[in-house]
Parts: sequence; structure tokens; C-alpha cells
Amino acid sequence: MDGLEDIIAEIGRRCAAASERGTPASYIPKLGQVDPGQFGLVAVTADGREIAVGDADQAFSMQSIVKVFALTRALERIGDVLWQRVGREPSGDPFNSIVQLEHKSGVPRNPFINPGAIVVMDILQAGTTAQASIDDLLGFLREASGDFSIAVDPEVAESEDTHGARNRAMAHFIAAFRNLDNDPEEVLHTYFNACAVSITCRQLAWAGRYLAWDGLTGPNGRRVAASATARRTNALMLTCGHYDGSGEFAFRVGMPGKSGVGGGILAVVPGYASIACWSPGLDVAGNSKIATEALEELAERTGWSVFASQC
Amino acid sequence: MDGLEDIIAEIGRRCAAASERGTPASYIPKLGQVDPGQFGLVAVTADGREIAVGDADQAFSMQSIVKVFALTRALERIGDVLWQRVGREPSGDPFNSIVQLEHKSGVPRNPFINPGAIVVMDILQAGTTAQASIDDLLGFLREASGDFSIAVDPEVAESEDTHGARNRAMAHFIAAFRNLDNDPEEVLHTYFNACAVSITCRQLAWAGRYLAWDGLTGPNGRRVAASATARRTNALMLTCGHYDGSGEFAFRVGMPGKSGVGGGILAVVPGYASIACWSPGLDVAGNSKIATEALEELAERTGWSVFASQC
Amino acid sequence: MDGLEDIIAEIGRRCAAASERGTPASYIPKLGQVDPGQFGLVAVTADGREIAVGDADQAFSMQSIVKVFALTRALERIGDVLWQRVGREPSGDPFNSIVQLEHKSGVPRNPFINPGAIVVMDILQAGTTAQASIDDLLGFLREASGDFSIAVDPEVAESEDTHGARNRAMAHFIAAFRNLDNDPEEVLHTYFNACAVSITCRQLAWAGRYLAWDGLTGPNGRRVAASATARRTNALMLTCGHYDGSGEFAFRVGMPGKSGVGGGILAVVPGYASIACWSPGLDVAGNSKIATEALEELAERTGWSVFASQC
Amino acid sequence: MDGLEDIIAEIGRRCAAASERGTPASYIPKLGQVDPGQFGLVAVTADGREIAVGDADQAFSMQSIVKVFALTRALERIGDVLWQRVGREPSGDPFNSIVQLEHKSGVPRNPFINPGAIVVMDILQAGTTAQASIDDLLGFLREASGDFSIAVDPEVAESEDTHGARNRAMAHFIAAFRNLDNDPEEVLHTYFNACAVSITCRQLAWAGRYLAWDGLTGPNGRRVAASATARRTNALMLTCGHYDGSGEFAFRVGMPGKSGVGGGILAVVPGYASIACWSPGLDVAGNSKIATEALEELAERTGWSVFASQC
Repeated sequence: MDGLEDIIAEIGRRCAAASERGTPASYIPKLGQVDPGQFGLVAVTADGREIAVGDADQAFSMQSIVKVFALTRALERIGDVLWQRVGREPSGDPFNSIVQLEHKSGVPRNPFINPGAIVVMDILQAGTTAQASIDDLLGFLREASGDFSIAVDPEVAESEDTHGARNRAMAHFIAAFRNLDNDPEEVLHTYFNACAVSITCRQLAWAGRYLAWDGLTGPNGRRVAASATARRTNALMLTCGHYDGSGEFAFRVGMPGKSGVGGGILAVVPGYASIACWSPGLDVAGNSKIATEALEELAERTGWSVFASQC
Repeated sequence: MDGLEDIIAEIGRRCAAASERGTPASYIPKLGQVDPGQFGLVAVTADGREIAVGDADQAFSMQSIVKVFALTRALERIGDVLWQRVGREPSGDPFNSIVQLEHKSGVPRNPFINPGAIVVMDILQAGTTAQASIDDLLGFLREASGDFSIAVDPEVAESEDTHGARNRAMAHFIAAFRNLDNDPEEVLHTYFNACAVSITCRQLAWAGRYLAWDGLTGPNGRRVAASATARRTNALMLTCGHYDGSGEFAFRVGMPGKSGVGGGILAVVPGYASIACWSPGLDVAGNSKIATEALEELAERTGWSVFASQC
Repeated sequence: MDGLEDIIAEIGRRCAAASERGTPASYIPKLGQVDPGQFGLVAVTADGREIAVGDADQAFSMQSIVKVFALTRALERIGDVLWQRVGREPSGDPFNSIVQLEHKSGVPRNPFINPGAIVVMDILQAGTTAQASIDDLLGFLREASGDFSIAVDPEVAESEDTHGARNRAMAHFIAAFRNLDNDPEEVLHTYFNACAVSITCRQLAWAGRYLAWDGLTGPNGRRVAASATARRTNALMLTCGHYDGSGEFAFRVGMPGKSGVGGGILAVVPGYASIACWSPGLDVAGNSKIATEALEELAERTGWSVFASQC
Repeated sequence: MDGLEDIIAEIGRRCAAASERGTPASYIPKLGQVDPGQFGLVAVTADGREIAVGDADQAFSMQSIVKVFALTRALERIGDVLWQRVGREPSGDPFNSIVQLEHKSGVPRNPFINPGAIVVMDILQAGTTAQASIDDLLGFLREASGDFSIAVDPEVAESEDTHGARNRAMAHFIAAFRNLDNDPEEVLHTYFNACAVSITCRQLAWAGRYLAWDGLTGPNGRRVAASATARRTNALMLTCGHYDGSGEFAFRVGMPGKSGVGGGILAVVPGYASIACWSPGLDVAGNSKIATEALEELAERTGWSVFASQC
């Protein structure tokens, strides 16, 4: 697409200068201390170009974005039997709601709300240890992105644990319905570490390529996941990727996307681009305010929406 | 795409012969009497081809599919202020749930659940009569499809009214929150008539073209709706088009789609095709069992999924 | 009990002078115009004494208090089969909540929330007309109180209808689950008229005697209801008589009681007294603020609590 | 009352022989192994008589009945500020529901559902240790009953812990809302031990006397709790003592009562009697089937209902 660099540069300038930036998550001290003035955006396109603006190499906490990669790994490992333990419907509830678990006998509504991700972590851990499953997830992120420096931030992981009462409640609640095979505390260890992975926009955009190209790292790339796995992960991202703001994101942006409370968003335009965007301030639904606006403008100006004919 | 006719013909044969066909809706006598052995599928593609198999010219009751066209008309009329009166998030509840209305002060969660469609009908009726708003909706269906024989089945409309206690409850409940401008009984008249529109797969596939081509009736067609309206209607279809089976349809089929309890489904592949499929038997979520399977197979064999790179 | 007149006189003085009086219900114009400075209290005791203070002869709208008498009549008519159509558990929801109806397939949780009372009205109307069932209810109120001037306020009844969207929604919703035998609009006519009965504290205290003396109008009085009916009506009043403030009333006052948004409360001390109290201003839960305080003080000073040994 | 011994003897014979006895709780092995054929009933009356039938000296697990005594102790210790941390409304939900906690920001709806009792245990533990608070509770049970052999069954306490995933989830969930002052695991230790107290009908009936006589152990007894505490504990028992079967128990029996899944029920007739009844088989709501029937017959034949005039 002609002028993509210009469009992204312009978005970068506007987003760096925006005055209303939302508020960074504060339940973990280290997240709350992040400078909300930061903004990064990186797009990797079908022809292998990487277009980066702003704080593209500033590491941030993946948080819920890691759930995308965890789901991919779990699907690769056990396939569709996964859906006997996790649903695939949007929840209509906040990410940390426990209500629906009770109504559905401990089967989380989808893999991107916290209880769903906890079950996915339990699946990743089957027959192995918490540490091995964290290593497997890191290994996949590194392989998919081609960047072997991606790692867990141990300080954040520990803070997640310290402030993890609600996730702890969920894990024990799921266990009460016998939908965890491993010890809840060990699964939480995996979960907290996975959420604490540090990543940059550049690393994330490269890691997400397999979602844009049916499991390959590009139109003629290496295969890192099955075609069906990529397609299905995208479907889940579009319907459930932004908690109870998922309909809103689909409506405004029109790309499969997944946000994290660290302020990052991974967005995918199948056949066209893998995009990572980051700015720490969140809106009331817990999604990055500036990153969402950046992606909305990008979709508007490029036509990159799965709901438009030119895409 | 090479072989599309063959693929569709094969799907048609398989679906006509399938033994497990679900059960037709029975809350209205005339719907319950429909022969569940019927199956029709029509695709209209970018090059203007029409590929039809089976009972392509058998009329069926649009039911909830009409909500797509009503939303389009309402968006064309009042634009984004519509979203002050209806949400755009998946509901996680059945189509006829009243629970969420109470929690959200009479603002339906999205325009495709019954209470949402009732509010959309109220918007269509603003400043005019129930009859005029039904005529407007029929006019749009006729213009979009190019077929001026599309009409309301008065027997079904009357049955909807007779068996409409739950929709009646919803209309009065919304009115209690002052989210209806017109008399609830008049809005219900519009709603019951709209749901009772009779249509064939052929008519429906042609009527849906504007969703596949950004508001035009084809790549170089007439404009019947704004580009943004088409894109947004698609987004709503993908996230909310199959009630609490929406995530499932996105996952299995990967196309924006809208089902009705008459057994029809309208599915859209932006840039590629407008597809109508029909078979009267429903699954437990109230969506056509055979039509869903047909579309799943079509997506699988053609790659027509908004979540795949080749589409 | 010695000094009861003094205690009640003192309560009357304090309650007439109180400055924080709550706010009268305003959804019906005539209710909103009532002077919130009014207060009345009448107790009829086992020895036949009537102790009255304040505005004891000022008529007010019975509103939900009428549900007590409607339940008694319905139990007398059909007995325990009534409980196949209405539950007898506290609801944990506001009086006008529709949520629970959906979860329980149209069976209201108890006869004192609005949908429950609507079903009770439907039972009263079985085999007769709306007018006849209103007359029956009035007849019972007159016979139980010995005052034949008790009547419906037609202006309030009409206002109830005009502002009755939410009750209308509930009636149709119940009908959708086939838990109404009569036409919903006719049942609503009965319901709106019943709520619009005008009564004074003096009339109400006399009408409620049968609840204090096992169905008799006093220790040696006439029988107007079966002993079991009185006892069971009391049980429902204690657990469900103040909507989602029922636990609070049991805790603070400790008498079976029923409030109405007209500001009245009927309270019963089995074996000791039938008490009516009225002051138009309501608290946030919709119960009379001053009347509740008066009854709390009365219970405190007399020991009239079903949870204390001296009673 | 004349003939009370005869009435109770007759009830004892009928209940020992009944064929439909419900099913003992089975989530803990030791509870599931209890012989469902057992039945005991002991009443202690105003004149100091003790009437006992059946397995009156067979120890069973107090389970939720202990919540009555824990509430009494917590009210004695901190008074009405307790109600800032726990509500006093019936819940309309099962005893182990977590839903309502989310809607009310971690404030349990009443002290007799599991999360409410967990908060009460946290209050008992303030400024002391888990062991000291267990000892305090045992001390109160021993003092109130006059039987110093009442003790925790360590095997049951350990089983509660092993099978305590759901209670564990609740404790962590409450902690997430900062409504626990102590470590959740320590509070659970107290809770599990309290539920595991072993008691006989004879011991329980004597321990409950203070509820029947305004905090005294009899009409002229020792004071073990304040009068207001007794009255308020009774109010909570009547409205919330049988989970979502509380309205049913009030309706059928008409006494403040508290059940436990061990099959016991403590029932109180203020001024008349403290009654303990036990039979291990439970109904669908988790309350003892035979013990409920026994109390219903006792109320019927003695007139011991707080809703009848002769009581």
C-alpha cells in the first residue's frame, strides 16, 4: 500500500502528542509507574517490511496479550478437545468476573477472560512442570518473533502473585468444579509468569505474523502453527479479545486484536499485516486508550478492516 | 475462484441428503409446518455470478435476518446517535432474554437481540407510522435485491402477534425505561411485520450484496448504503449475529452472518460474496443446523474466512 | 401492657416532629402531592383496646399492603396449590425486578413482589371478572375491619395504569410462560385497582387483626380466615414483606410486616396486637422511613418482637 | 404444655421409622458414611425440662449450625459495626454461591451463607490467632451448654480443608475486595475447624437456650449473651437460616432455625423452648429431610410458631 509509512508516521506524531491518554493500570506498583506519555507502533506487512514509530523498542508487560500465544500452543497440543474445558463465546462480563463460572459449572466462557486463561495454562502444564510450561511459551514467542531475548520480568511476576487474590479465587473456584488437573497454586505460578513477560512492539509485531499468514511467519514464511489454529485464534480475538469492549473494538477497528492492561494491543489483518501498538494509559474497559485510537485511525485510512471489501 | 460451482453443487447434494436436520421452530404454527427436508444456497460473487442450488426459490420467513436490514436503515437515518439507545456488545444471553435490560436500564445490549431490534424499529418509526416504516424496510429490501416481489406474509405477522407475549413484555419493559418514543403496541406491529417478511435464498443473497461491497451492490454497483454503514453492520453480524452461538459461528465459519428462526442465514465475505443459505431445522441455539454446516464446509473449501490470509 | 398509651403517645410526638422524613413516591402524581409531614399510628390489642395517635383517620393509598389481603383470599380459595404458581422465598431483588422471573420460568419468587402479586390477582380472578375480584377483595377488607367505607381511589387506579409499563411488562412476561389464566390486561386492571385502595391507619389496624389472632378478629372474635392461612401469611410477611429490606425490618423491628409505597406499614404481633403505621416519606428501599422508625421504637420499648421471650 | 413428652415420643417413633430419609452429604468421606437411619430430638423447655428421643447422644458434625454461635460471639465482640462487613438480607442463592459477592463488592449478603461466615470468622480472629478463635468458640459452646466435652473432630476438619476449594475461592475473593483482615488461609483454618465441631442433640439443645430466653440460659438463668444479640441472631436465623430454603422453613415450621449439612437443625421458640433435631439425610436444598418434618409436626401439634397467637 502506497503511503503506509506516511500514514503510520502521522499517527505516531498525533498519538505521541495526544493530551487525553487514560490511566496506567495501578494494581501492580511497577505497572503504575510507567510513563503514560509513551507510544509505540510497529506493523509488519506481507512484503516483509517493518514500519516502526515511537517507542517501538521500549519493553512493556504483555499481560493478557500472552493469552493469544498460550491459546495457540494449547490448541496445537491438544486440538479441539480444549473446547470441552473452555467455551468460545463472548462473555458480556469484565475480564475478572467470577459470576459466569458459577452458572457454567466451572467452564470459563472463553480462553481470553482470566479464568479461561487459567484453564489454558493448566492444559499447557499437563504432564510437565510450571517452569517447563513457562519455558515452552517463551520458546514459542521467541521462535515466532525470531527474537530470543524475550523474557519474564520476575519483579512483575512476583507482584502478580502478591496482588493475585482475585485470580487465586478463580483458580480455586475452577478447581472446585474439577476443571483443573494441576494444583491451583502451580497453575497460578505459570499464569502470573506468563502475564509478566516483557515485550516490545517490535518483538510483538513479529511474533504475531503467524496469525496474519495462516500459521506461517509470512506469505512464504516458516510454519509455526497450523493454518486452522491461526484462523481460530483470530476468530477468538475478534469476538473476545477486548473483554466487554470486544464489540466496540470490532465496530471501531474491525481487526482481530488482543489487549493487555500493560497498554499493549496486538492486531492482525489477515493477508496484510501484523501490528503491535502500545501506550500505557487505559480506558474504563481496561484497554489502551491511545493504542485503540491509533488502530482505529490506521483502519480508517488504510481500509484494513476484515469487514471491508478492499481488505 | 475455480470450481466454486462444483463445491456448491456438492454441498447442496450433501445437505439435501443429510439425515440429522434439527427441528423447525414451532412457536408459530406456520413455521412448524415447514418441511425440514428442504435446503437452498445461493452465492453472488464479485464478478456478478449467481450460483444457486436446491430450494433457491422457496420462500421462507426472514425472522431475525431482517434485523440486519433494519439496522442498516436506522444507521443511515440517524447515524451513530443510535448507539445511545442500543449497545454493540455481544450479550452472552439468549435472543429473548430480558435480564440484561434490567441491568442496563432499558438499553439493549446489541441491535440483534429482540429488545435491540425493537428499539431499532422504534427509530425507524420516528416521525412516521408503523405502516410507513414497514414499507420503508420492504422498499430497501426490494431495492437492494432488485426484486420487487418481496413482501410480508400476513398470516405469519398475525401469528407473531398472537404468540408475542415475550416480545410484548420486552417492549413494555423498554418503555418503562423511556427508551421507546412510540407506543409499544405500534412498535410491536412494525416488529412483528418485519419478522414476517417472506424471502427466498436468491432474493436474500442479492439483497445482501451491499454488505460484501462496502455499500454498493457489487464492485462497480449502485450505492444503497454508506460504506461505513456496511462495514459496521458486518462487525455487528460477526460478533452478535447468532445470539449466544455467535462465537461458535465466528469460530467454525468465520464470516459475518445473521440467522433467523425461519432457518435462513445471510453470510457475507467482504470483497468476495454475498451468500444466503436456508434449511428449516434448528439446533439448540436456534440457528439452522444444516445451513450452518453448509457454510462451514463452504468456508473450509474456499478459504472464505475473514480470519484467513487468502480472503 | 401498662403504659402502652404513653409509649405510643410519645412515639407519636417524636415522629410528628422528626425532621428527616424521606421522600414520598412520585411515579404517580397524586402520591407525590401528599404532605410528608403526616404521621399516624393505630394499635389494636388483645383486650380490644384501640390506641391511636396522629393522622389516624387520614386515608392513604394501600399499594403493596393490599398484597397481604390478596394472598389471604387466594389461600382461602385454592389452598396450597397456589405454591405451584408462586414461590415463597425472599427474593434478594427489588420489588419490580423481572430478572428472577426469567431464571424461574415465570414463577415469581414470592407473592409480595409485583410479579407474585400479579399471579395472585390472576388466581382471585379465576372463573369470574376483574370487577368481581376487586369487589371480593374490598369485601374482605370491609368485613375484616368492620368498616364498610373502604374503597378504591379511581384517580390513583387510572394513574397506576398510565404509569404501569413495568408491571405491564411483567404481566406479559408471566403470560409468556403460561402462568396467567386470564388476559394480562384484565389481570393488570385488577392489580392496579387493588393497589389503589384508600385506607386509614384505623381501618388497617382493625383489618389486620385476623393475622394477630390466628384468623379471628380477636382472642374471642369472628373467624375471617383459617388459622393456617393467618400463620402462613405472617411467615411470608416476615421473610418477604419489605422487598430487599425484609431482613433489615426483621432485624430492627422483629414483627411480620408489610409496607406499601403509599407510606403505610401493617405490622403484626401474634397474640398481642395488630398495628398500622403511616408516614408518606420513603427510604431508599421504598419503605416508609418514619413508620419504620416508629415500629422499631415500639418493639424496643414494649418487647413486642417475635424473637424475644416475653412476647 | 401437657402431653409434650407424648407428642415428642410419637414424632420420634414416626421419624425413626420413616422410609424416605434423603441422602447424607458426601463431599467429605466421613459425612457420607453416617447411617441415614438415625434420628434424635431434644427439647429444653421454659420450666427446665429436657425431653429427649432417639439418638439424642449421638455426636454429629455441626457444620453450618456453628455459624449461629460464631455470629453471636462476633456481635458480642464488635456490635453493630459487624454489619458494615456483612449484610443481613436473605440471599436467594445457594449457600455456596459466589455470584452475589461480585455484585456487592465482597460484602456477603448475610452471616449464614458460607462467605458471610468466613467474614465472621475473620472478625473473631481479629487481634488473635486462628487457634485462639477456635478455642473461644468452643469455650462459648461449652459454657452455653454446660457440657465441657464439646470438641472439634480433627478428621472432619482436615477433610474440610482437603475438599475446600470452593470455600477457598470465596475467602480469596473476599480478600480481593479487602474485606478480610487476616490471611485467607488462616481464616479458612478457623472456618474449617469451626464447621467440624462434633455435637449431640442434647448438647445443642442446651447450648441454644440463650436464644430462647433473651441471652439467658433459661427464664431465670445465667446471662451468656446480651438480650439484643439473642433477638438479632434469631431474626437472622428466621430469614436466612436455611439458605434458599429459608422461606420454606419459616412457612412450614415458623421457628427461627439453622441447619447444617451434617443433618442437624437448631430451632428456637422464644420463651418456650430450645430444640435440637438431627437426621443425616438431606433434601435437595441441603437441609435435613426428617429433622425438618419432625419440627414441622412439632410446630403443628404444639402451636409453637412465632406466627401464631398462642405462642
